[in-house]
Amino acid sequence: MLLRRADELSIKIHLKEYSSVEETGPHSPGQLTVLPIKLENSVVPGTPDSTNAKYLLETLDRAVDGCLAREFSAMVTGPVSKAVINQGGFKFSGHTEYIAERCDHAFPVMMLMNKVLRIALVTTHIPLSKVSSTLNPGLVEKVILTVHHELIKKFGINTPHLLVCGVNPHAGEQGFLGREDKESIQPAVNNLLSQGLHIFGPVAADTAFTPASLKGMDAVICMYHDQGLPVLKSQGFGEIVNITLGVPILRTSVDHGTALALAGTGKADDSSLLAAIKCADELSEHY
Amino acid sequence: MLLRRADELSIKIHLKEYSSVEETGPHSPGQLTVLPIKLENSVVPGTPDSTNAKYLLETLDRAVDGCLAREFSAMVTGPVSKAVINQGGFKFSGHTEYIAERCDHAFPVMMLMNKVLRIALVTTHIPLSKVSSTLNPGLVEKVILTVHHELIKKFGINTPHLLVCGVNPHAGEQGFLGREDKESIQPAVNNLLSQGLHIFGPVAADTAFTPASLKGMDAVICMYHDQGLPVLKSQGFGEIVNITLGVPILRTSVDHGTALALAGTGKADDSSLLAAIKCADELSEHY
Repeated sequence: MLLRRADELSIKIHLKEYSSVEETGPHSPGQLTVLPIKLENSVVPGTPDSTNAKYLLETLDRAVDGCLAREFSAMVTGPVSKAVINQGGFKFSGHTEYIAERCDHAFPVMMLMNKVLRIALVTTHIPLSKVSSTLNPGLVEKVILTVHHELIKKFGINTPHLLVCGVNPHAGEQGFLGREDKESIQPAVNNLLSQGLHIFGPVAADTAFTPASLKGMDAVICMYHDQGLPVLKSQGFGEIVNITLGVPILRTSVDHGTALALAGTGKADDSSLLAAIKCADELSEHY
Repeated sequence: MLLRRADELSIKIHLKEYSSVEETGPHSPGQLTVLPIKLENSVVPGTPDSTNAKYLLETLDRAVDGCLAREFSAMVTGPVSKAVINQGGFKFSGHTEYIAERCDHAFPVMMLMNKVLRIALVTTHIPLSKVSSTLNPGLVEKVILTVHHELIKKFGINTPHLLVCGVNPHAGEQGFLGREDKESIQPAVNNLLSQGLHIFGPVAADTAFTPASLKGMDAVICMYHDQGLPVLKSQGFGEIVNITLGVPILRTSVDHGTALALAGTGKADDSSLLAAIKCADELSEHY
């Protein structure tokens, strides 16, 4: 597939088959080391083929296993069509869940970041109506603690400072605008404060992202998808990296979907993929 | 009160009592035209006194009535303590609701804006858990239509272009992440499209605020408080103005609370109040 694409783009490239890290020398232009996984069918750009779902999952399996065995330093994923994988006969609700399951059922936390802001999510892809009832002190505490430990382990931040958003407007205004801030978030914060963590909150989300509020903070914990991601993506969509915390491997990902309509047109923007690769490379120095 | 404050700050000022617009000349430094409303008690900075609640509501009544009668072009409000007004024996859930009621029970829509972005809210100060069930096609349509008409009337925008956010992550992903985008928002959008409005949506909120997505848009309609306001406030907190749409008067407001701890310290930031006054002045040219 790579050779066919290179041919279509008139790029001369020599593929070298990967055998081991030891035998893989430094990268040289015009040559690419590839760990080949067999396709079932040849690929037509922009036309997903569910018979290739097996190939896709095999690439993930090989990458996760290689990371777990420390053969590889990190893995980087592009977007996939969940629907097509499911049509191929495999249950697949997303990269993150799939990877976490293969990592001995780890507890994954989604964090998105650009060069100035890191946002971790307590809940991710669930209806807004389910957010408040999904929150509880145990979940909130587990997510904050995961972010805390991973910022130390994967980012080399010795003393992470975390800003925790409330879930209701104005963080509930003393319970006047909802009790979840007091009942589901505050107990988790109190418990972690007593363990010596540097956390602040729950704070009102609308003023959480001002320069004054973010000063000295290493990450913001948001309770749901659209509480923090609109801020992050408004600052520069292409340079955002999605990193999975809570799994014992380093995995980064692009922040966008498949954009199948752009496949083969040469118009797809690769800046998020490049940022994800660079981020994985940088973080692998710590991890 | 004003004279006492001026004295404390060693500012020499001459107060002139307002009698009518005709008799009020242009502003000259060192002189201030004041429409006096009597206080019940003298004011101690930072210490609200509920016996002055009556005074406060009378200033609002006089301003609203003057605007309705076209005696005044606009009114600008600072923050108030709702609790103190209620302690004074008056039911008061907020400036906006109070003003709307005095304007013959108008349908108010809260819009916040800075120099580059306008965000109008379908729901405002309610718990997050109530947002999805509060939305319905009638409400969404009424808010969008109000914003459309007011951008024409108060802002002089001939053909408003409005971006409408979905309520669930990824605008519900075809119903996979919640049905409200399809059932409560899409019908309103369809109905208004058939009336010739330039509206786009429901779109995913996380990517709604990228420069590409906002291009050509005059306002974004958000379904709830923390969907859009974190983006707006992250861009420059002090210069945000809150404007009430849907009332037959021009009313702007600051975007912050009372900050009672700063009263009398000289440290309070007046940039939002100045922006609210300037905005009211500019808009009164159209209205």
